[in-house]
Amino acid sequence: MRPLTPADLNPAILNVQYAVRGELAIRAEEFREKLQAGHKDLPFKKVISSNIGNPQQKGLDQPPLTFTRQVAALMEYPPLAELVKDKWPQDVIERAQELQEEIGSIGAYSHSKGVPLIRKHVAKFIEERDGYPSDPEDIFLTAGASAGVSLLLNVLITPPTTGILIPIPQYPLYTATLAQYNGVALPYHLSEPDGWQTSLAEIEAAIAKAEKDGITPKALVIINPGNPTGALLDVPTMESVVRLCEQHSLVLLADEVYQSNLHKPDTHPFHSFKQVVRRLGSPIPLFSFHSISKGVKGECGRRGGYFECANISPEVRALLYKMVSVGLCPPLAGQIGVDCLVRPPRPGQPSYPVWKKETDEIAAALAQRTRIMARRLNALPGVSCVESPGALYLYPRLELPQKAVEAAGKLGKPADALYAMELLEDTGICVIPGSGFGQKDGEHHYRLTCLCPGVEEYVGALESFHVKFLEKYGGL
Amino acid sequence: MRPLTPADLNPAILNVQYAVRGELAIRAEEFREKLQAGHKDLPFKKVISSNIGNPQQKGLDQPPLTFTRQVAALMEYPPLAELVKDKWPQDVIERAQELQEEIGSIGAYSHSKGVPLIRKHVAKFIEERDGYPSDPEDIFLTAGASAGVSLLLNVLITPPTTGILIPIPQYPLYTATLAQYNGVALPYHLSEPDGWQTSLAEIEAAIAKAEKDGITPKALVIINPGNPTGALLDVPTMESVVRLCEQHSLVLLADEVYQSNLHKPDTHPFHSFKQVVRRLGSPIPLFSFHSISKGVKGECGRRGGYFECANISPEVRALLYKMVSVGLCPPLAGQIGVDCLVRPPRPGQPSYPVWKKETDEIAAALAQRTRIMARRLNALPGVSCVESPGALYLYPRLELPQKAVEAAGKLGKPADALYAMELLEDTGICVIPGSGFGQKDGEHHYRLTCLCPGVEEYVGALESFHVKFLEKYGGL
Ligand SMILES: Cc1ncc(COP(=O)(O)O)c(C=O)c1O
Ligand SMILES: Cc1ncc(COP(=O)(O)O)c(C=O)c1O
Repeated sequence: MRPLTPADLNPAILNVQYAVRGELAIRAEEFREKLQAGHKDLPFKKVISSNIGNPQQKGLDQPPLTFTRQVAALMEYPPLAELVKDKWPQDVIERAQELQEEIGSIGAYSHSKGVPLIRKHVAKFIEERDGYPSDPEDIFLTAGASAGVSLLLNVLITPPTTGILIPIPQYPLYTATLAQYNGVALPYHLSEPDGWQTSLAEIEAAIAKAEKDGITPKALVIINPGNPTGALLDVPTMESVVRLCEQHSLVLLADEVYQSNLHKPDTHPFHSFKQVVRRLGSPIPLFSFHSISKGVKGECGRRGGYFECANISPEVRALLYKMVSVGLCPPLAGQIGVDCLVRPPRPGQPSYPVWKKETDEIAAALAQRTRIMARRLNALPGVSCVESPGALYLYPRLELPQKAVEAAGKLGKPADALYAMELLEDTGICVIPGSGFGQKDGEHHYRLTCLCPGVEEYVGALESFHVKFLEKYGGL
Repeated sequence: MRPLTPADLNPAILNVQYAVRGELAIRAEEFREKLQAGHKDLPFKKVISSNIGNPQQKGLDQPPLTFTRQVAALMEYPPLAELVKDKWPQDVIERAQELQEEIGSIGAYSHSKGVPLIRKHVAKFIEERDGYPSDPEDIFLTAGASAGVSLLLNVLITPPTTGILIPIPQYPLYTATLAQYNGVALPYHLSEPDGWQTSLAEIEAAIAKAEKDGITPKALVIINPGNPTGALLDVPTMESVVRLCEQHSLVLLADEVYQSNLHKPDTHPFHSFKQVVRRLGSPIPLFSFHSISKGVKGECGRRGGYFECANISPEVRALLYKMVSVGLCPPLAGQIGVDCLVRPPRPGQPSYPVWKKETDEIAAALAQRTRIMARRLNALPGVSCVESPGALYLYPRLELPQKAVEAAGKLGKPADALYAMELLEDTGICVIPGSGFGQKDGEHHYRLTCLCPGVEEYVGALESFHVKFLEKYGGL
């Protein structure tokens, strides 16, 4: 009997890379365990997981929205209604009752596309957002946006010559899943000097290159607002993107999970691709993804989200239904979360004042931290940073001293990976080097989240580490 | 711009079949919608979804366990503790507090393998069950057992020549996922005359055939207790299976989700493959799957479960960790459910009496229904049915009249599919024909669940339909 080795496994799996939970995250875990075990020999007192947009994690402790959680608690244990009847807002109790009547127990498998009533509510939310109709049959609830993206890539990719256009930098779910399903990543660079705008010329160039390489571009991924960049597409760019998809028969995959994380909505508003596609009357197949993990909700652990299909035939939709039915159904706690996302309390309802205060505070704190952090990072020597208008991140660019590049080279690492590792070891702050998201050759970046309780302590640590690093490698 | 058609999609996806939610389930949904909309022209008043082991679904309404749900409600909304402090059992409140302190908010992504403390509890549960050590690092919490099976098949299959040995009849998750990942299903027949026992000779024959066909058998799937058969493997058979895996260098995939659904534990006890492997000191790579969806918990909608690796190298485990990290983490509600599964209330604890009563009642009702239904089905002309000692199902065999076979043939259907469709149209009971699970050529079966509130009404309807069917097709 031979033992099972990596060489025995699906080679596609060996190629998967996922930096968000890669080497640095594993090292950060070790530090966390050390601190928990009472070790006192580390130069920091806590680990800050700035590698992952996880607002409610320990140490960040963004509070969950009361409305969502009260509804969820009632769904878990319906007899609770009796106990809280005069204590919790009436609309919470009614919401739970309404869902209860429709769903029955949240311990039952639901419809594989998600509870029909919740899909209706999602469609209504989309209609109100966009001003165009949405069909509940086109909505698939998912275990987070990740599950939807993974499904669609699996379905769209016929190995080995299917190419998928992805932005660089990108959220590494895309490259990881492409590797898993033997798809070819067709990178197109976002334009950093223009605040990470999407460049049609770059996409065209990537398509031309793919065709030369014998790869068929099948779909175009747009992350809007961007991760890690926070950039938002303006309407003219979106229209050009749609036209480009028409021209090249591309499926558009619109990852819009950060659609409500807007820090400068006056100058950088969000427009959905669904709206643009409908306004143009375009026939392009579109899948748009949303999630309860981001926004001001930050309900990552529930695993909830949805995707909407537009211009997708009933036959293809039926295939997708078949595929999700193999996994039985998305988690009910996530589905309840989606219902609360798309049907928040309205003005006049008893839950509204608390909900409004909670969501306003979270949004304001995030926008303010993003601004302060970007400005202070920009003030550091060798750092330049687009002040993200959306999402949860900053993606500063580093000019690193030659000596650091050489030292990293000796370790077989990009210099920003060395930077991130030393940052972690010195401050307990875990970020992700630009190599995890993609960047141009010779460039260095890192991504950090703008989630943290005390911005002063956090940025202060980043600043003093940066200066130390430059001193160490002769960059000052 | 061409529209997206099935022909544009990954051909592997087109081959996926999943009967549990196939044509019949879709038709059943239509009937349910009709009834909801007030239609009165159907010959039944409700649809009974006997196609899926979903104990808490509407109409079956198996109650959730109070302990699990109270803990879960507290995790959803921790301030609730104040309100229920003198009303709910103290151990519920302590359990929630303990998990709370470890996890923080259930709205945060957890460790991708699941909350470390919960994995420790799973390992302890396995140690107590088997009498052999279990390492929390070998435990991966999952979104139901389905997610674990899907991951492992994806990782083990190198297309196009990897074969996976699967029992026939089988739970169609296996054939569906094999089709999805371009693996080759290597069927081995269970022996119906021996109560669906696993036959080593059949497995050997399937291996020999695979090798002749140029297919490399990579893993052996055992479902124990079986779905759809309810059969349990005895220890000598399990030992031979392990030896066979050693001899052919096979990975063993032990689907043990029904391990606590035992209707005749004295004559048909459950033994885990982990225990057998350890007792034999065998080096075979083993993955065993468990779930909170089945047993007496029936918490399908939470999507919780785990798999344990045995004899798996740290390198392979690290690859699995990488893969699960792409999906971020299993749903926290499912993870909490796993904790309650592996740490139920103990005698002496305040929650114990209610927990004991609830679980005993569910188990007894299930065993009794299984017995009654098997006996009454066996009394019907042309029906023979193994009285399942485990799981949630019966898998009766039908001798169908030649005319029915011909009528079905004209519709391009197997005769048991015709039977199941007419059963649904006549009684509202949705079962799955044997063709969905696999059977020998010319045989006919169907699977039905033993979940139902009133056994009399349910079996009564099955009986009178059966007689009508035989009359219609000249079998009486
Ligand atoms: C751009 C983007 N898409 C999708 C996801 C997946 O999130 P989830 O699966 O939690 O919805 C993330 C998570 O960070 C993301 O940043
Ligand atoms: C044999 C078997 N394995 C696995 C599963 C998957 O269940 P879940 O994903 O809900 O844990 C089922 C569900 O019916 C099953 O019957």
